[in-house]
Amino acid sequence: MEGKLVLIGDKAFIWYKGDLHTHKGVISKEKLKQYGRVETHKGVEAYILPLTIPDYIAKIKRGPAIIQPRDFGIITGLTGINKESIVVEAGTGSGAMAIMLANIVKMVYSYEKRKDFYRLAKKNIEKLGIKNIMLKNKDIYQGIDERGVDLVFLDLPQPWLAVRPAFQALKTGGFLVVYTPQISQAQELVRNAKGFIHISTIQPSCIEWVIGEKILRPRHIQRIHTGFITIMRKTEND
Amino acid sequence: MEGKLVLIGDKAFIWYKGDLHTHKGVISKEKLKQYGRVETHKGVEAYILPLTIPDYIAKIKRGPAIIQPRDFGIITGLTGINKESIVVEAGTGSGAMAIMLANIVKMVYSYEKRKDFYRLAKKNIEKLGIKNIMLKNKDIYQGIDERGVDLVFLDLPQPWLAVRPAFQALKTGGFLVVYTPQISQAQELVRNAKGFIHISTIQPSCIEWVIGEKILRPRHIQRIHTGFITIMRKTEND
Amino acid sequence: MEGKLVLIGDKAFIWYKGDLHTHKGVISKEKLKQYGRVETHKGVEAYILPLTIPDYIAKIKRGPAIIQPRDFGIITGLTGINKESIVVEAGTGSGAMAIMLANIVKMVYSYEKRKDFYRLAKKNIEKLGIKNIMLKNKDIYQGIDERGVDLVFLDLPQPWLAVRPAFQALKTGGFLVVYTPQISQAQELVRNAKGFIHISTIQPSCIEWVIGEKILRPRHIQRIHTGFITIMRKTEND
Amino acid sequence: MEGKLVLIGDKAFIWYKGDLHTHKGVISKEKLKQYGRVETHKGVEAYILPLTIPDYIAKIKRGPAIIQPRDFGIITGLTGINKESIVVEAGTGSGAMAIMLANIVKMVYSYEKRKDFYRLAKKNIEKLGIKNIMLKNKDIYQGIDERGVDLVFLDLPQPWLAVRPAFQALKTGGFLVVYTPQISQAQELVRNAKGFIHISTIQPSCIEWVIGEKILRPRHIQRIHTGFITIMRKTEND
Repeated sequence: MEGKLVLIGDKAFIWYKGDLHTHKGVISKEKLKQYGRVETHKGVEAYILPLTIPDYIAKIKRGPAIIQPRDFGIITGLTGINKESIVVEAGTGSGAMAIMLANIVKMVYSYEKRKDFYRLAKKNIEKLGIKNIMLKNKDIYQGIDERGVDLVFLDLPQPWLAVRPAFQALKTGGFLVVYTPQISQAQELVRNAKGFIHISTIQPSCIEWVIGEKILRPRHIQRIHTGFITIMRKTEND
Repeated sequence: MEGKLVLIGDKAFIWYKGDLHTHKGVISKEKLKQYGRVETHKGVEAYILPLTIPDYIAKIKRGPAIIQPRDFGIITGLTGINKESIVVEAGTGSGAMAIMLANIVKMVYSYEKRKDFYRLAKKNIEKLGIKNIMLKNKDIYQGIDERGVDLVFLDLPQPWLAVRPAFQALKTGGFLVVYTPQISQAQELVRNAKGFIHISTIQPSCIEWVIGEKILRPRHIQRIHTGFITIMRKTEND
Repeated sequence: MEGKLVLIGDKAFIWYKGDLHTHKGVISKEKLKQYGRVETHKGVEAYILPLTIPDYIAKIKRGPAIIQPRDFGIITGLTGINKESIVVEAGTGSGAMAIMLANIVKMVYSYEKRKDFYRLAKKNIEKLGIKNIMLKNKDIYQGIDERGVDLVFLDLPQPWLAVRPAFQALKTGGFLVVYTPQISQAQELVRNAKGFIHISTIQPSCIEWVIGEKILRPRHIQRIHTGFITIMRKTEND
Repeated sequence: MEGKLVLIGDKAFIWYKGDLHTHKGVISKEKLKQYGRVETHKGVEAYILPLTIPDYIAKIKRGPAIIQPRDFGIITGLTGINKESIVVEAGTGSGAMAIMLANIVKMVYSYEKRKDFYRLAKKNIEKLGIKNIMLKNKDIYQGIDERGVDLVFLDLPQPWLAVRPAFQALKTGGFLVVYTPQISQAQELVRNAKGFIHISTIQPSCIEWVIGEKILRPRHIQRIHTGFITIMRKTEND
C-alpha cells in the first residue's frame, strides 16, 4: 500500500509525496523516507508509520456515511470470510467498505447506482492501487451478475429490495449481511428474508474507556451507535 | 476446509465422514455429499452447508475460554491485518484465535507454555488442515523469536510481562493488541506500555435483538461482556 | 410496613408471623422479634432486616411481568414526583408499580381492566397495609375519572389508546410516562402524542459489575433489557 | 415550590419574578401568572409550566459535577426510601442530591467540608424554600452525628474513609450507597465494606433514542457514562 501515516500529537496525516506541511511545521521528503521518530522544522516531534487500511479509512474523502472499521471487523469475524472469498457489496458510497473487504478477500464486486459516488469511489480506490475491486455503476435492486458468491453485503436505504438478487448470487451457505441505521429497516428486512435462515440482528457498540493512574471509567460522551447489522444465511439452491 | 455444517432446528453439527447420527434421526453419508435441504431418516428437515471458521469455532474442543469471532473481527477491523500480515499470538489455548487469524493473514506464530493446551490446539488445527500456523510450546514472557511482525496479540494473565518482547518483535507502526477479562488488567498494561502510542481500550458489546412481527427489542438476558480489548502501536525501532 | 426480611446466604425470605422454615433450618418466632444476626436451629447464619418495598417487590406474587425498582426509580427521578403528587397508573397487573409509587407519592389511582389481576393486586396491596392506593376495575382506554394529576403512567399493550384520557387527566406541565417492552410500541405512541412536548424515549440499562481482589468486570451474562421508557409533558389546558 | 418553567423551543428558563427576558423576546410578568401557551413580545411561542425538581436541577448553579436525576432515581428505586426516611449524605456540593432527596424523604442531613460549596448549596436550597435539609459544614470522614438512619449516600473522592461512620449512623438493614466516577474507587470501597452485605455495583446507562416516522435508532453520540453506583446493606448493630 502506498503512502505513509504521520502522527503529530493527536493529529494524523497521510503522506504520498513531496514535503509534508502541517500545523506544527514542515517535514521534508528526505525525512519521510524513513519510519519512526522525526522532528518538523519547528522541532515538534512526529512519528512516521506504515499506512494501514483503517488509517486510510479514517481520512477517506467521503460522500455518504461510511461503515466503521469496527463494524466491518465484526462482519468479517461472524462470516469467516477469507483470502478465497468472493464478495458482492452495494452501495459503494465512497468505497470504504469495498476497500476494507478487498484487504482480506479475493475479489469484491461493488454496485453503486449514483454516478457521483461511483466516481468518488473510483478515485479513492485508485489512490491506494487496489486491484481486486470491480466497481459497477449499476442498481443492485435490478439484479446481481455474479453467482456462487460467499457474502453479499448491503448498505442501502431499502435493502429488502435486494434480497432476491442476493439469494440468486449467493452459494448455498453464503451470507447476506445488511447494515441499517434504523432498527425499523432491520425489521422490514427480516419480514422479507425468504430463503434465508439463522437470521440475527445485532447492535454493535464499543465503549471506549479512559485509563490513567487514578482514572478508570468509560468516556463520558461518545459515539454509542453506528448501525444495526443483520446476518442471515442462504440454505438452498434456487 | 474439510467438513460440513448440518443444521437441524437450532442445533448445529459438524460432519467429517460416515453417517451423521443426531437427536432427530440419521442422515446417510450419501445425502451428506450434497448441500441444501435434506431429511433425516425420521423425516426431520436438515440443512447441509459449507463449514466456515466461525461455525468451527463455535464447536471447537476447548480448554480455556476462547476469543469470540466478534472480538476477533473487531481486532481485524481496527488493525487492518490482511493477506500479507505476519502475526504472533499467545497463549494459544485451544487454538481458536490462531485459527481465526490464519484464515485471513499470511502466517501465525502461536506461543503456548502449557503442554496440554499445546497438544489440544495442535489437534484442533490439524483437523482443519491449516498450514499457516506455527505452534510453539514456549513461554512468550521469555521472548519472541520473530522480528518485523505486524501484530502481536496477547490473551494472557499478565500481559504486561510480554510488552518488551512484543516491542522487539513488532515492526515500526505494528500493533500490540491485548485481550483482558478484567479492566484492572488493562490498567496495569497501560501503565507498562513503554514505547507504544495511540493506546486505547474498548469494551466491545454486541446487543442481540429479537425481531418479529410485533416484537422489536433487545434480547432480555444475554452475554453482555466478553473481555476488554486494548490496542496500541509501536512507534520506533529499538 | 409489616413483615421482616430474612437473608440466608443468597436467599431472601419475607416473614410475617410464626416460625420461619427455610432450606437451612428453622428460625423461631422468638428470634424473629429482633433485627441482626441470628442462627437457624441447624446453626446456619441468618440476618433479620427491616423489610423495604424493593425487597417486597422482588418476592411479590405476580401475574404479568412487573416494572423493576430501577425503572420505577428512573421515572421518579425524571419526573420529580414527591409527597404531594397525585398519580394515575394502568394496568395495575400484580400491583407492583402502584405499591412503589404509593411509597413516595400522596395518592395513586390504579386502573386494571382484568378482574383476575385486579384481585391479585388487591391482595398484594392489602398484605402491606397500604392506604393511599385506589384500585379501579376499569378500562383506562375508556377514560380517566381524575383531573389535575401530576403523572399518568401506562404499562399497557396499546398505550396510544390512552393518550387522550391522559391528556384530559393531567394538569398543565404534568407528565405522561409510558413503559413499552418493544421500541415499535414507543414509535406508535410518539406518532400519537398530540398535545404533548419534550418527548423522549430512553432504553435504561444497568450493567452489573463483579468486583473482587482480582476481578473487575461486568457480569458476563445478565439482564440487559427490561423495557423502553417514553416521557412527555402536557403543555396546555384542553 | 416557587418559580415557573418557561420553554421556548429547546431552551428552558426558570422564572421567579418580574418580566422574563429571553433570546426570543420578552414575556411580561402578567402573562407569567398563568400556565400554558403564551407568546413573547416578538410573537414567538412559549410554554409556561409548573417547575419540577429535575427542571431546577438542570439549571442549578453548580460547583462540582452533580448527580443526574436518573441516577438519583435509581438509588430511590433500589433502596425504597420514602416519606418516612431519614437520610445522611456527603459531600453536598451544589446541593443537587440533597434537594432531590428532600423532595421524597422526611429529613436530609448533608455534610460538606468546603466552605465555598457549603455556601453555594445553602443559596440553592434557600431559593427553593426547602425546609427538610440540614446542611452541615463538617467533614464526614470525622464522623456522623445522626443515628438510626435509613440511607447514607456518599459522593466523595475517598468514600472508604466514611464506611465506618456510615456503619455507626445506619440502622440495621439500612443502605450505604456510594457514587464513584471511577470503577477503581468502587473496588477500593468494596475492599473496605466491613459489616455490610448484599454489596452490588452497577453501571447505569440510559440510551436515548431518536424516533421519527422513518427514524428509529439510538442517538449516535451521547452521554454513556455518569458514575458507578455501589449499594450495600448494614446487617448488624455495632
